[in-house]
Amino acid sequence: MVAESKGRAGGLRLWRNARLVTMAESSAGLGVVEHGAVAARDGRIVYAGPESEMPATLAQDERIDCEGRWITPGLIDCHTHLVHAGNRANEFEMRLAGATYEEVAKAGGGIVSSVKSLRAANQDELVAQSLPRLDALIAEGATTVEVKSGYGLDLENEQKSLRAARQLGDRRPVTIRTTFLGAHALPPEARGDKDAFIDLVAKEILPAVAAEGLADAVDGFCEGIAFSPEQMARVFDAAKTAGLPVKLHADQLSNLHGAELAARYGALSADHLEYTDEAGAAAMAKAGTVATILPGAYYFIRETKKPPIGLFRQHGVRMAVATDNNPGTSPLTSLLLTMNMAATLFGLTVDECLAGVTREAARALGLLGETGTLEAGKSADLAIWDIERPAELVYRMGFNPLHARIWRGQ
Amino acid sequence: MVAESKGRAGGLRLWRNARLVTMAESSAGLGVVEHGAVAARDGRIVYAGPESEMPATLAQDERIDCEGRWITPGLIDCHTHLVHAGNRANEFEMRLAGATYEEVAKAGGGIVSSVKSLRAANQDELVAQSLPRLDALIAEGATTVEVKSGYGLDLENEQKSLRAARQLGDRRPVTIRTTFLGAHALPPEARGDKDAFIDLVAKEILPAVAAEGLADAVDGFCEGIAFSPEQMARVFDAAKTAGLPVKLHADQLSNLHGAELAARYGALSADHLEYTDEAGAAAMAKAGTVATILPGAYYFIRETKKPPIGLFRQHGVRMAVATDNNPGTSPLTSLLLTMNMAATLFGLTVDECLAGVTREAARALGLLGETGTLEAGKSADLAIWDIERPAELVYRMGFNPLHARIWRGQ
Ligand SMILES: [Zn+2]
Ligand SMILES: [Zn+2]
Repeated sequence: MVAESKGRAGGLRLWRNARLVTMAESSAGLGVVEHGAVAARDGRIVYAGPESEMPATLAQDERIDCEGRWITPGLIDCHTHLVHAGNRANEFEMRLAGATYEEVAKAGGGIVSSVKSLRAANQDELVAQSLPRLDALIAEGATTVEVKSGYGLDLENEQKSLRAARQLGDRRPVTIRTTFLGAHALPPEARGDKDAFIDLVAKEILPAVAAEGLADAVDGFCEGIAFSPEQMARVFDAAKTAGLPVKLHADQLSNLHGAELAARYGALSADHLEYTDEAGAAAMAKAGTVATILPGAYYFIRETKKPPIGLFRQHGVRMAVATDNNPGTSPLTSLLLTMNMAATLFGLTVDECLAGVTREAARALGLLGETGTLEAGKSADLAIWDIERPAELVYRMGFNPLHARIWRGQ
Repeated sequence: MVAESKGRAGGLRLWRNARLVTMAESSAGLGVVEHGAVAARDGRIVYAGPESEMPATLAQDERIDCEGRWITPGLIDCHTHLVHAGNRANEFEMRLAGATYEEVAKAGGGIVSSVKSLRAANQDELVAQSLPRLDALIAEGATTVEVKSGYGLDLENEQKSLRAARQLGDRRPVTIRTTFLGAHALPPEARGDKDAFIDLVAKEILPAVAAEGLADAVDGFCEGIAFSPEQMARVFDAAKTAGLPVKLHADQLSNLHGAELAARYGALSADHLEYTDEAGAAAMAKAGTVATILPGAYYFIRETKKPPIGLFRQHGVRMAVATDNNPGTSPLTSLLLTMNMAATLFGLTVDECLAGVTREAARALGLLGETGTLEAGKSADLAIWDIERPAELVYRMGFNPLHARIWRGQ
């Protein structure tokens, strides 16, 4: 790209001679604009549309010629466990030797091994270990990344995780959204007493984390190997009291009707959903709960049951697509590859994939007013690509055609 | 890494304080050496082993402290169609709308559309379009890349493809091995006459390409939608006359006994092999023909039949792992992701994956004497990684932990 003149602070920046994927809801499909331009001032989009229709009143302090490249909204990873310590490559080797995910968990591996590693790391170490993963996402155009806690499982270590997540946002030009996932797994010191641990989460850890402003949302893992719908409901009630929106890891390995539980609480999203049934899809549609599709985990743990994409379409459930980056079941740090998996493994269309990592991912974070589309008023979060057509972003595997990335106008 | 002193031309370079994956055949598994060192002079390894056992006579003009990092042989992609023009993201969109690979082919898409694009591009354009793909492989530690022709399908355009491939090796610090794949598909001007086209390939194009020294090996596509074993045999006879080793795309979509054909001709490798049976595996083992596993194509075209890994192990067939980078069925430019797919989709172990992109890939190219392991006498082709254990190279998805890459000692 050629910057035709230098910008001033507070001035207007204009990206012209571009092709836009606006993802605006008022448009069909991708909301493509040929011969488009995006103008931003003070980090906000003031215009996105045909270059020829841009108001002449917009003074242009800095003009950037995109030379026909495509601009999409900056990508959004709306479901990650990116702040963690160590990795579980050893368990991966075990699984190749024939052990199942549940066998690994029962053998003392699984989430609990990540809990031990996280508790042993201090906040600086957590940040240092997590930055390369965040950098991998950023290198492919991510401008917003959600990060969950859930490997701490006591107040001190959950706080440490969430503070590390917030610190990532200070260290890199990216929007970090934090989610408190205290109800992720049972820590060893709980000695099998799930109800007592849920009490601790709902009555002590969650209120303290919320009071400190460390969490933007509350999540849980509703599954036979984790917590029951009734236990999750107690956590969600506490979230409501604290004024925080909720999300849920639902119906990944079995159908506990997590999707309906999430919908009942007006959750921003329910995530995974391999075993969700039609009643679950209908409830989500009614509640406006986004279905977050996580093909990396499906692929990595060699699941065979696919989420009911047809039911989601039929009932008008919005679908987001995310990496689920985590050390045990999805050591994935590429939203481009995630889109390819969503298409190849689950049959999502190109348009659904691109919406899933932009507009719908923003919706799943409660940020649709702020980012996720190229529309006036939103944060100027852009990804500029060396491609000939948007489908290339989904089609390729292990190739990064990002030309430039803009976060809040810079 | 810290270079403790500057090197001189012709001097000895020493990478010390490293952990080695030597892949030496004399060793078990990965041939791991803790506290290892690699010394090179004039681009050749002169020592690889425990640092404490290194001959004191090796003067060290340049010492590089690897700070405990892992060194593997430089990675080798032994099966690519990397030189091509355009992409087929549009067909990918078609397939997501429900069309099969064969339906796309019959609708005038498929290989023939890549033939049109390649013929329309000149050699410089081909090189320019292919370099970003090569760069993606290099960025992950590849030091040797095989490139096939096969989208030209007449003398002029096959020559253009192979010259472009050779030129890639002049433009980047990487070893390029070229393979003539004239018998890839039937061009439109052949008007359905496969026998006449095979005559042209075997009697005119192959001898001319060989006389010009453009090809290091000869390959073909033995399949119902391509050429029969009898037709392939005529091409292989011509290769033998020209003094070139052979390879074969065999048994990908059906069992035409391509593996046995390849073995009968002492092929370096037979590739794909989803439908290969026990007789094929046994014949390959006897002939020393490498089985090249291509999980990217299996994944991308949503195949369900897996190659018989168990039979290959049982009969002692060596397995290489490669990207099959091509625009129609495997737009994949990551050997790290390819290893993950080989493990996750086909159950290869970590050791098999790493051997597959180093030692066995070298064997599949007839280059085992030159590269593929860390052993004295071989080219100093190294990849140095920011990892704690080799399994991480297979376990992660969409993450590149390469610290440095050395090709021929530099
Ligand atoms: Zn998750
Ligand atoms: Zn191939």
